[in-house]
Amino acid sequence: MKFEIARDRLIDALSDVMKAVSSKATVQILTGIKLEVDDEGLYLTGSDSDITIRTFVPAEEDGEQLIRTARGGSIVLQAKYFSEIVRKLPTNEVEIEVSNHLQTHIRSGKSEFHLIGSDADDYPLLPEIDDDRHFAIPGDLLKTIIRETVFAVSTSESRPVLTGVHWQVKDGELVCVATDSHRLARRKTRLENAPEDEYSIVIPGKSLQELNKILADSGDPVGITMSNKQVLFRAGHVLFYSRLLEGNYPDTSRLIPSEYKTDITVNGRTLLQSIDRASLLAREERNNVVRFMAEGGNTVEISSNSPEIGKVEELVETSSIEGEDLKISFSAKYMMDALRAIEGQDIVIRFSGSMRPFVLKSVEDDTLLQLILPVRTY
Amino acid sequence: MKFEIARDRLIDALSDVMKAVSSKATVQILTGIKLEVDDEGLYLTGSDSDITIRTFVPAEEDGEQLIRTARGGSIVLQAKYFSEIVRKLPTNEVEIEVSNHLQTHIRSGKSEFHLIGSDADDYPLLPEIDDDRHFAIPGDLLKTIIRETVFAVSTSESRPVLTGVHWQVKDGELVCVATDSHRLARRKTRLENAPEDEYSIVIPGKSLQELNKILADSGDPVGITMSNKQVLFRAGHVLFYSRLLEGNYPDTSRLIPSEYKTDITVNGRTLLQSIDRASLLAREERNNVVRFMAEGGNTVEISSNSPEIGKVEELVETSSIEGEDLKISFSAKYMMDALRAIEGQDIVIRFSGSMRPFVLKSVEDDTLLQLILPVRTY
Repeated sequence: MKFEIARDRLIDALSDVMKAVSSKATVQILTGIKLEVDDEGLYLTGSDSDITIRTFVPAEEDGEQLIRTARGGSIVLQAKYFSEIVRKLPTNEVEIEVSNHLQTHIRSGKSEFHLIGSDADDYPLLPEIDDDRHFAIPGDLLKTIIRETVFAVSTSESRPVLTGVHWQVKDGELVCVATDSHRLARRKTRLENAPEDEYSIVIPGKSLQELNKILADSGDPVGITMSNKQVLFRAGHVLFYSRLLEGNYPDTSRLIPSEYKTDITVNGRTLLQSIDRASLLAREERNNVVRFMAEGGNTVEISSNSPEIGKVEELVETSSIEGEDLKISFSAKYMMDALRAIEGQDIVIRFSGSMRPFVLKSVEDDTLLQLILPVRTY
Repeated sequence: MKFEIARDRLIDALSDVMKAVSSKATVQILTGIKLEVDDEGLYLTGSDSDITIRTFVPAEEDGEQLIRTARGGSIVLQAKYFSEIVRKLPTNEVEIEVSNHLQTHIRSGKSEFHLIGSDADDYPLLPEIDDDRHFAIPGDLLKTIIRETVFAVSTSESRPVLTGVHWQVKDGELVCVATDSHRLARRKTRLENAPEDEYSIVIPGKSLQELNKILADSGDPVGITMSNKQVLFRAGHVLFYSRLLEGNYPDTSRLIPSEYKTDITVNGRTLLQSIDRASLLAREERNNVVRFMAEGGNTVEISSNSPEIGKVEELVETSSIEGEDLKISFSAKYMMDALRAIEGQDIVIRFSGSMRPFVLKSVEDDTLLQLILPVRTY
């Protein structure tokens, strides 16, 4: 193997695949990155066995030569050292050559590194995936969907399936649901060219967070292909594979109340800042619980109280309060997560009494629903 | 106590005193910040008993009213909560009132916090300091002096006096020396209006690092007053006290070679980047040691070798090499620290043989000297 490549392009491709490489990898070969070069270009692969990322740098792009391949081949190089070396090379011209079986030379300017590689045949094969269950979503929309739901997954392994986001394709719609059994986020997205079959998969939250870091904020379509054990996201020259979580995702539709007793319309950003202040004194002793009270007029009172430190009370103006008076307590963190997901718009919060879950939505848009279970304090 | 203050001014003053407050304070009262208000303005004090910082916000500045004091007084408030609360208040108008002895109310917009304060009489008094041993240095110069020396202090407590920087005032000159017995940094500064006496104190490295964060990068003078146990830096409205280290600082002048065998002049930035690359493979196994070789011609070879991972070799062009051929090994970290302190200028490195300390200086400027002890590998 011997080729020349522009350092900036190699850095870009490497920084994507590095997101799949874990510093705690237990399988030795997965501490490495696989390089394969031929006349087409360079493929880089990184994996932690849950996530596999494969990027491609073409030999030529828009008439510009990016890679000059003198001799094709493949090698696995220690991810940590290889990426740091490339980042610090003195010039933009990089030559990589494998000689004497696994001896790898990285040359740039007057600098020459010799790394001991591993045999590329020992690197795991890419996950197999059938190409039949396929649809596409614009990249920026996919990022929004991930951001609006993934924060609500469970961080506890007691019910592993809840550490993932449930993706269901049905009737031309993608429904994404995440819950840790204290709060829930549900996002519905109408699909263009939706597949006719019904799909139901659970994607690990961690995979979606890593995918989100790689996706560009552009309208270019991201291809999504599902199999029984894997999902593949294809964005430009990047392939992102994730294993799926096994087990049945619970039916969450029963959680969402069908009747409401109090509707409050309020500016999301104002409420977020107020909850943030109230949570300052609620963090340690009181498990981050704040109180929320609507008793006549157009204002709600947010408060919290920590006997050791002090208390805080605040009035927040609303656009309208309809229905019964209300006293309810909830986790400030869950409320802030939900308000951040909806983003600073005017929102409506619908309550069904102080001991029942309540939901938050944008007043303009019905696609995203956030649900929170209250905490008993009154 | 009752007064109104502009939130942005309170935040600025708080962020300075917060640098003295340790989250691990063992003395309960030192987890707090002392507020004292009178017709002159507001004084804030924070301390971890090693460092004490006191800031002042005047009632009026340039004809603008910053504080309206209705009732003078003092209180100690939990630093962590108070600073977070102030930072998140909804408006720039803040009212702080102490009622019922220690009950403190913080009001802004429609938000009201109640904190339980502590008695200001329980807060330690400011260190006593005589005003006679005094001189001044422009703030930006003081920052430079700190940056050029403080990194070289010892991090080990085995010889506590080496965790500080030795400041000596003598013959109209300030000489600052730091060493961890493997490397040394020495900076000489000619003083205007220097005091006639000789002073010699050792300031904890940690204190100087915190001071550096507070000082503005301006030419305004910083007053420096030394006593036997304390040093006081006075910059505008900020007073910064640090305790001094006890014990005799070693005489380091004998460490600096008087004769040299090889002089190498080279661009500091180029050399820094080359050492940085060589250290990539030297970090874990080889205690960060790189080799440096000058054998004829105008280039030096930088290399390192890690049997498990690989090796690196690099040639660096110099401006000139005078004297004997040289093979020497040293800590890449110490070399990079020294080169960063001198900053990207052309530098001269003066060697006295492969087993003797060597020194680095700027070619233009003799005020700063960096010395490094080599490591035996050849």
